[in-house]
Amino acid sequence: MTVIKKVNLPDTEIPRQWYNIAADMPNPMQPPLNPATGKPASAEDLAPVFPMNLIEQEMSTERYIDIPGKVLEKLLLYRPTPLKRAYALEQHLQTPAKIYYKDESVSPAGSHKPNTAIAQAYYNKEFGIRRITTETGAGQWGSALSFSCALFGLECKVYMVRVSYDQKPYRRLMMQTWGGQCVPSPSPDTSFGRKMLAEDPDCPGSLGIAISEAIEDAVTSRDTRYSLGSVLNHVMLHQTIIGLEAQKQFAQIGEYPDVVVGCVGGGSNFAGLAFPFLRDKIYGKQVQVIAAEPAACPTLTRGPFAYDFGDTAATTPLLPMYTLGHNFMPPAIHAGGLRYHGASPQVSQLVKDRLIEPRAYDQLKTYEAGVLFARTEGQIPAPETCHAIAAAIEEAMKAKEEGVQKTIVFNYSGHGLLDLPGYAKYLEGELSGFALPEEEINRAIAAIAGLPGICTGE
Amino acid sequence: MTVIKKVNLPDTEIPRQWYNIAADMPNPMQPPLNPATGKPASAEDLAPVFPMNLIEQEMSTERYIDIPGKVLEKLLLYRPTPLKRAYALEQHLQTPAKIYYKDESVSPAGSHKPNTAIAQAYYNKEFGIRRITTETGAGQWGSALSFSCALFGLECKVYMVRVSYDQKPYRRLMMQTWGGQCVPSPSPDTSFGRKMLAEDPDCPGSLGIAISEAIEDAVTSRDTRYSLGSVLNHVMLHQTIIGLEAQKQFAQIGEYPDVVVGCVGGGSNFAGLAFPFLRDKIYGKQVQVIAAEPAACPTLTRGPFAYDFGDTAATTPLLPMYTLGHNFMPPAIHAGGLRYHGASPQVSQLVKDRLIEPRAYDQLKTYEAGVLFARTEGQIPAPETCHAIAAAIEEAMKAKEEGVQKTIVFNYSGHGLLDLPGYAKYLEGELSGFALPEEEINRAIAAIAGLPGICTGE
Repeated sequence: MTVIKKVNLPDTEIPRQWYNIAADMPNPMQPPLNPATGKPASAEDLAPVFPMNLIEQEMSTERYIDIPGKVLEKLLLYRPTPLKRAYALEQHLQTPAKIYYKDESVSPAGSHKPNTAIAQAYYNKEFGIRRITTETGAGQWGSALSFSCALFGLECKVYMVRVSYDQKPYRRLMMQTWGGQCVPSPSPDTSFGRKMLAEDPDCPGSLGIAISEAIEDAVTSRDTRYSLGSVLNHVMLHQTIIGLEAQKQFAQIGEYPDVVVGCVGGGSNFAGLAFPFLRDKIYGKQVQVIAAEPAACPTLTRGPFAYDFGDTAATTPLLPMYTLGHNFMPPAIHAGGLRYHGASPQVSQLVKDRLIEPRAYDQLKTYEAGVLFARTEGQIPAPETCHAIAAAIEEAMKAKEEGVQKTIVFNYSGHGLLDLPGYAKYLEGELSGFALPEEEINRAIAAIAGLPGICTGE
Repeated sequence: MTVIKKVNLPDTEIPRQWYNIAADMPNPMQPPLNPATGKPASAEDLAPVFPMNLIEQEMSTERYIDIPGKVLEKLLLYRPTPLKRAYALEQHLQTPAKIYYKDESVSPAGSHKPNTAIAQAYYNKEFGIRRITTETGAGQWGSALSFSCALFGLECKVYMVRVSYDQKPYRRLMMQTWGGQCVPSPSPDTSFGRKMLAEDPDCPGSLGIAISEAIEDAVTSRDTRYSLGSVLNHVMLHQTIIGLEAQKQFAQIGEYPDVVVGCVGGGSNFAGLAFPFLRDKIYGKQVQVIAAEPAACPTLTRGPFAYDFGDTAATTPLLPMYTLGHNFMPPAIHAGGLRYHGASPQVSQLVKDRLIEPRAYDQLKTYEAGVLFARTEGQIPAPETCHAIAAAIEEAMKAKEEGVQKTIVFNYSGHGLLDLPGYAKYLEGELSGFALPEEEINRAIAAIAGLPGICTGE
């Protein structure tokens, strides 16, 4: 009872502003490019896809941006989230390190995704939009957006990769319970979908196809826009409430972390926790920031920095980022949310500037960490989150070897209650580690040699 | 931002004692009977099944019982749980009533069940037991016990009704992730299971069969005892931490509820929230206490008060309770946790003494309440919890009609993330209300006319 295991922030202490790291980056961001002209993409380029108020946020360099009252009201349904101490895990590891985690799994959708879904639904509503389209793979993002649209009375249509639609019914059922419309992609509802179905009626779909359908639907329908759940600057912005809360919670107990950890797919949960701490680091604070990615998709640790498309179908502006190429197809690891060929341009730039240290973990190592966490702390983490736990455990063991006291915090980005089949396969010894072989990495890098701004030398 | 939506209790404020309502009941409990002798069951009768320290709690009339430090340490993994205000639901209903809910879904197993599973695992360990057996239907209890056994290094074997084992793989996967052993019942692991399989190799199983297997395993194995997740006095006792926390949280905001609501199957989540408020009611406080049960299994609203067996196989002591008969088979509603023929003897006695008001809700009404809750408050409730929400909404609408300000609190006993197929069927219009027809109720009552102490007249 002497150990505090949870630090709660009262509702009245919820942050009132998001933090925009664009204001503090030591090297300014390179702009996204219009692939047709090769010139920086303009707000007008994006206007058919996103509402103008979100495009303004995407391009803003204001350091702090007010969170609208109606967004705060909905965030308060589950925020502030608790900062918890993994004391039982520490005891099991016999480490002198303290391990904290920010528990984003308490949101109704079970992950950090609603932090931006709520904001995006609000800004679309304010802009007069009545309907939002998006794509989803395993379903985390589609369910978060369906939930958020229900709160603001917006229609929501989710194009879900057909193979996931068939194999993972629970996420689809969540969307429907919140009133979202979820269809398997390719669908007969768009001309691109019809084209794909004509070529192959049994097409299993892909994220690239689903994005193309969702964007086509948005730009051809009345009062409709498209929404993206990661990668873009305004998504990182909305997620910073995680780190801003964590800083208040650490202040409450008179601590400050030595190590900050998050897992990275597109980068949003990582950025959400890390950016406020990176602000301090940019201004001289000693803090180590680790981005944990899958060895099956080692974008930040092995990919070149280049201008690449955000989607497989090559329809987006060119984004400056670490990438394995927009045609790269990662192995079928269970952490579906981390199977992305690129990464947030802001996160990429900060990795390039050596403010963030990327590390890759293979699937077996991450499940080992997840099962240990479940059997000590109780909660069963999402397979994506297991990457952050693996890195936190690695740091805690290093502290033990070195005999130093350290404070580690990681983002517990989501629970694994709808991802249990992966655990079963791990426990039955049926999983592979899926580290990407050297020749496949080289092949992926060679395939994008012609991209603008490519930079592999560092 | 003027409305507080969550009342958190700091870790240091977690209650240090459970509340035992046996000390304050206006009419003392009738004792359980040994069915062979017809005399009150003794501690020795129960000793092969439960450890003696839990038997002592079962029979105790001490008002407050200290929570051991090691139990508190594990409860702190997720407790104190938040008291939340369903403000968006209030706004939707346009009611002057305030609706609060105690969120027990935040436990790693997703329900209130770990409150007693942790305590039972601890007491078994203290008594030198190394292995616990139990049965589970849909899997809520089996997963809570597996989780709790993992925390204390105990082995756990769960006999899961075969039809659920096959149809509901996610709960089984949770148990396995925590290291529990889960087998379909009937199993070849017990003589009773082998007998059932010999008669019918495709036997779908039942809770009655699974209980018989779990008890046989416990009484015939070394250092093994059996564990039950509801009905018994010590289970009600362990759950009172819910209501004790809620009282501290209401005190923190200077309020006291006018109406306290919980759903009832065996009675443990209801008792957990309600008993501390019933203590105040017994000593003169004005507070209405509502027990919400399914119209498909109207034990408290329609069953007689009698001595009946707790299990279908008629192996337990005779318990004094409202019952529809131990052979009664309720319709297959989705709220599997409320499909119990009897009810906690303590809850039954307090209903008999008119301190608790039972009400029955049909399945359609409860899903309607659950979907409204999901689309306003965000969280998707368990089908069992939907019964409590239906009653809370009924009271809120009554307050609106009467134009009176009221404070309502209900127990949000669990989330519905692993119960989504039921929502899908409701939304597709495929569900029935399943209110039990009058003739079936009469048939059930007639079938138990010979039980001792039967009392239908009231």
